[in-house]
Amino acid sequence: MMKDISRKQSAALPCAACYILRRRCAQDCMFAPYFPVDEPHKFTGVYKVFGASNVNKMLNELPEHQRGEAVSSIVYEANIRVRDPVYGCKGAISSLQQQIDVLQTQLALAEAEVVHMRIRL
Amino acid sequence: MMKDISRKQSAALPCAACYILRRRCAQDCMFAPYFPVDEPHKFTGVYKVFGASNVNKMLNELPEHQRGEAVSSIVYEANIRVRDPVYGCKGAISSLQQQIDVLQTQLALAEAEVVHMRIRL
Repeated sequence: MMKDISRKQSAALPCAACYILRRRCAQDCMFAPYFPVDEPHKFTGVYKVFGASNVNKMLNELPEHQRGEAVSSIVYEANIRVRDPVYGCKGAISSLQQQIDVLQTQLALAEAEVVHMRIRL
Repeated sequence: MMKDISRKQSAALPCAACYILRRRCAQDCMFAPYFPVDEPHKFTGVYKVFGASNVNKMLNELPEHQRGEAVSSIVYEANIRVRDPVYGCKGAISSLQQQIDVLQTQLALAEAEVVHMRIRL
């Protein structure tokens, strides 16, 4: 339903950011290309965690061709922080680093076993 | 030098957040326990990336015993975003996930070789 509306009337509708911030969506709105009105959830987490003006500043400091990637990583980070308000991305990073430690130990053991068996063969 | 000043006169000095925000540091300042005046760099990244009022809100929503960990992860995340304004933590997470993929492949190969050699022994 939302999708249909945005496809038919996107020129007249504000982007999700301006809709949530209840402000007029200017033609050169920094958020409009990245926060379509039919994906409001993309902006709600970003707004809560980083704030609209901070994201605006961050995007402004980047060349246009990097802004899409930056928005994607900002949305990703905000969602992690909403799910885990204490540890956020640091929690995800620590858990991956632990997995790497475990895998490195397992690999070292398996490789040592290979070396040991080669001697016996 | 800064450390000595803060230890001797911490009651009279604002915290790093209030110092940077040029405001009076109230006795119940939310930032004071986590942003001592002798570590201003801890707050500058956080301020740039998340903004003071957002961090204040995030800490307010947490019980006091979790705020220290939350500040630590917020400082960590902000520093990564300052260093990598396009990919931020998502870049760090993707790179760790790639390392895990490589290690899992190497481990599977080493384990297969062990199984293969056991049959030959």
